[in-house]
Amino acid sequence: MDYYSNQISRLIEEFSRLPGIGNKSAQRLAFHVIDMPVDQVEELARTIVDARKNVRYCKVCCTLTDRETCPICSNPDRDKKTIMVVETPRDLAAYEKTGKYNGVYHVLHGAISPMLGIGPGDIKLKELMERLQGDVDEVIIATNSSLEGETTAMYISKLIKPAGIKVSRIASGVPVGGDLEYIDEVTLLRALEGRTEL
Amino acid sequence: MDYYSNQISRLIEEFSRLPGIGNKSAQRLAFHVIDMPVDQVEELARTIVDARKNVRYCKVCCTLTDRETCPICSNPDRDKKTIMVVETPRDLAAYEKTGKYNGVYHVLHGAISPMLGIGPGDIKLKELMERLQGDVDEVIIATNSSLEGETTAMYISKLIKPAGIKVSRIASGVPVGGDLEYIDEVTLLRALEGRTEL
Repeated sequence: MDYYSNQISRLIEEFSRLPGIGNKSAQRLAFHVIDMPVDQVEELARTIVDARKNVRYCKVCCTLTDRETCPICSNPDRDKKTIMVVETPRDLAAYEKTGKYNGVYHVLHGAISPMLGIGPGDIKLKELMERLQGDVDEVIIATNSSLEGETTAMYISKLIKPAGIKVSRIASGVPVGGDLEYIDEVTLLRALEGRTEL
Repeated sequence: MDYYSNQISRLIEEFSRLPGIGNKSAQRLAFHVIDMPVDQVEELARTIVDARKNVRYCKVCCTLTDRETCPICSNPDRDKKTIMVVETPRDLAAYEKTGKYNGVYHVLHGAISPMLGIGPGDIKLKELMERLQGDVDEVIIATNSSLEGETTAMYISKLIKPAGIKVSRIASGVPVGGDLEYIDEVTLLRALEGRTEL
């Protein structure tokens, strides 16, 4: 890329290393940045570095936060006796957007995957077990509906049940607005098994 | 987004302001950055700011560069008497990738668009005319094959021709590997008009 000068090539290279950014998008981003006002560019750079340096795991639920305890765990109105277990902070965000869940979370930062060599010790399971020493009514397992997510759900359920804590799993089924015709068979069977009386 | 802590929300917001980055991609980028090693994040931030601060227009061809004169204009092996006029530095890059063009470029940074209120004074046309005072054999107009690109091509051609300099326009036609069936009529007519003897 020596038709771009050195600093532009380096910027394009840096951008194209980010996930989901191909070479074309990286070029587009680079030229956009070069056209931005200097103070906005400095603000962008500062935000990136600050976030990286200050963000850590919440000491309770392990989600990413810039405080010792995340906003959800430090909110006195949230029900601390109900813990929803999710794989990533983005899954947490997805449930928060519903605005209807009032419990707290536990973020595993991954799922058990023998294929990828990710075992129970590689996700935040120990931290979850420690929390269960306290006063907990229910653990809702909301890992993904993938092979890894299901494996993780089974594993956690077997681990927790002996302690006498209620363990539940979010429902699998046809998405709202989903067209039966386009839904895979496994989902259709799950939806049938999980049918509720009207 | 108060379920993310402040610094993560700000990072997501900064990313989602960039072109082509929606809210989902911005979240993905943010969490990626938070997982990156600190020194790589600092390098990314520094590259962004440095590029913005040091990149300017080449004083000859107006492309973006971090030197006074871009690598192409300062290359003694390039034919300075042939100037290809393009709209953006990315168009320049596209022709450079062919590896077959040995002349130099002139980057307009836009095209004339009465619709968007962009007139001849808003693009780097004055700079082009100044270059033509020197020793130039041919000006190849390689603006886009859009309404704006064609308008700009016509305008430049009328401006230059009286000076007795040869002006040419890159060919319109069926893209190599293109399937006639899927090509629009205007392109098909252009390809017919521009046919060459075999």
